[in-house]
Amino acid sequence: MQAERLAPFRKASLIERISILGTGLLGTSVGLALRDAGFRGSITGWNRGAEQGQEALRMGAVDSLAADGIDAARASQVTVLAVPIFATLDWMEKLAPVLRPDQLVTDVGSTKRVIAEAAARLFNAQGRAAFLPGHPMAGKERGGAALGDANLFRGAVWLFTDDAAARRSAEGAELVRAWRELVAAMDAKVIDLDAARHDELVAWVSHLPQFTSTALSALLEEEVGEAPELKDVGGRALREMTRLGASPYSMWRDIAHTNTEAVERALLALEQRLAQLRENLRTPELRNEFEQANKFRRET
Amino acid sequence: MQAERLAPFRKASLIERISILGTGLLGTSVGLALRDAGFRGSITGWNRGAEQGQEALRMGAVDSLAADGIDAARASQVTVLAVPIFATLDWMEKLAPVLRPDQLVTDVGSTKRVIAEAAARLFNAQGRAAFLPGHPMAGKERGGAALGDANLFRGAVWLFTDDAAARRSAEGAELVRAWRELVAAMDAKVIDLDAARHDELVAWVSHLPQFTSTALSALLEEEVGEAPELKDVGGRALREMTRLGASPYSMWRDIAHTNTEAVERALLALEQRLAQLRENLRTPELRNEFEQANKFRRET
Repeated sequence: MQAERLAPFRKASLIERISILGTGLLGTSVGLALRDAGFRGSITGWNRGAEQGQEALRMGAVDSLAADGIDAARASQVTVLAVPIFATLDWMEKLAPVLRPDQLVTDVGSTKRVIAEAAARLFNAQGRAAFLPGHPMAGKERGGAALGDANLFRGAVWLFTDDAAARRSAEGAELVRAWRELVAAMDAKVIDLDAARHDELVAWVSHLPQFTSTALSALLEEEVGEAPELKDVGGRALREMTRLGASPYSMWRDIAHTNTEAVERALLALEQRLAQLRENLRTPELRNEFEQANKFRRET
Repeated sequence: MQAERLAPFRKASLIERISILGTGLLGTSVGLALRDAGFRGSITGWNRGAEQGQEALRMGAVDSLAADGIDAARASQVTVLAVPIFATLDWMEKLAPVLRPDQLVTDVGSTKRVIAEAAARLFNAQGRAAFLPGHPMAGKERGGAALGDANLFRGAVWLFTDDAAARRSAEGAELVRAWRELVAAMDAKVIDLDAARHDELVAWVSHLPQFTSTALSALLEEEVGEAPELKDVGGRALREMTRLGASPYSMWRDIAHTNTEAVERALLALEQRLAQLRENLRTPELRNEFEQANKFRRET
């Protein structure tokens, strides 16, 4: 298993210098997973706050810290943007004019339409660096470098959109292929998807579950947060359904802003579904709802 | 640890003959947990369908099977009703006239108001057996004897309502004390609660999470059940938020019927909360909702 995963790099990995801008949970996990997969080149980290950078360095996720993110990116073949979406867009504006065609930028943001649009505008053209929008379907409900995990992406899906655009130049194509090999070596399952379809799909399977858990947790805080019995009575079901309630606003604000319409549709559909269930608590219709739900679980 | 748990029975347990009516997941788990806690008396099982009874016998959760539940109860000091709520009410009607004051009946139903009312009407009076309404806050999303688990109640809360009523007679008081000792020996945390307050509380912390997961799973089945990408894209968050979607209608129908008003209030409150969140996806109000949710998670 180990040998199999190392194989691509032993042959010859094109990539020897990587920078990770943003060493929170995801950035730190990418660094650790790269090392675990056998990547032996340099990994330079940069983080807005010094503390998270130091933690990533201490954990071995990066082997040096850069004072300036632009300098780090200029010195790298591949730059991984591991910051919230609006910060990713800011970095794309800053990096596009200063990078070369033999450099690749990729990201880990949870919505892809706005990023793919920015990539088409700023990268992937004659004389410009390549940009490959990416989205590993992995995370934790709490952030921070200290929770970084070399195994975070094992068995998880890592989505790419607009792969063809990033491969437009010969140099871009080679870097994209090499980066995809590294991601596969982290044991992630690589899937390609259209950016618009991506945002629509994750609104249902990722954003809706998150916002539902947030609303449920906030409601329960208001209704029973003071009940002394609560802590003891809430079992595994309650813990699971509210675990995502711990997710930070800082990350989800950007998702809410960049996938608003799809999330609105999903939330409205759930509101209507709950109302229908509520009106049928004592009718045979409730059986249909449970059977439909059972069917979903049998398939996933 | 083992010695400590065994201590009460080595001294002298009043209870030597237990019957379990209903050997599904909970009934089988009670039998297994009793054995694991050191209970050495007889455990007779009865189940409506023969297969689940045979499975419980095979697993060692019961040491004999009764052809008739009433006969089993008559021959026991303690009868545990481990069937859905309406079936529990049926058994209470059948058992009350034939049991003696030196016998105790208890149950594991998820709502307690209707059961406490039936207990007051049928048991706990001069010449009648004692009835102690109980509710272990433990379970799995799928039922059946084969999933029975000796550790199901470890660390879980086991609620009792109307303890005082069951202890009205001297014989009842002794049996209640001995049964509570057995439950504590299963490593469950025993808590006493008023029946009405119980139903109100579990509507929020147990029933609302269940019906939310059911509605979410049913909706996702409709919206993305056919999407080939779904299975791979859905991560841990999706799995957790829809796990309870596998729960059977047969059990939840009775809960929906016997705690309707409290569940309706909770569902309506969540619908409104989701609508409010949906209308504030792009306003600073979203921050408040996340912070309120974060607060709930810090406390639980």
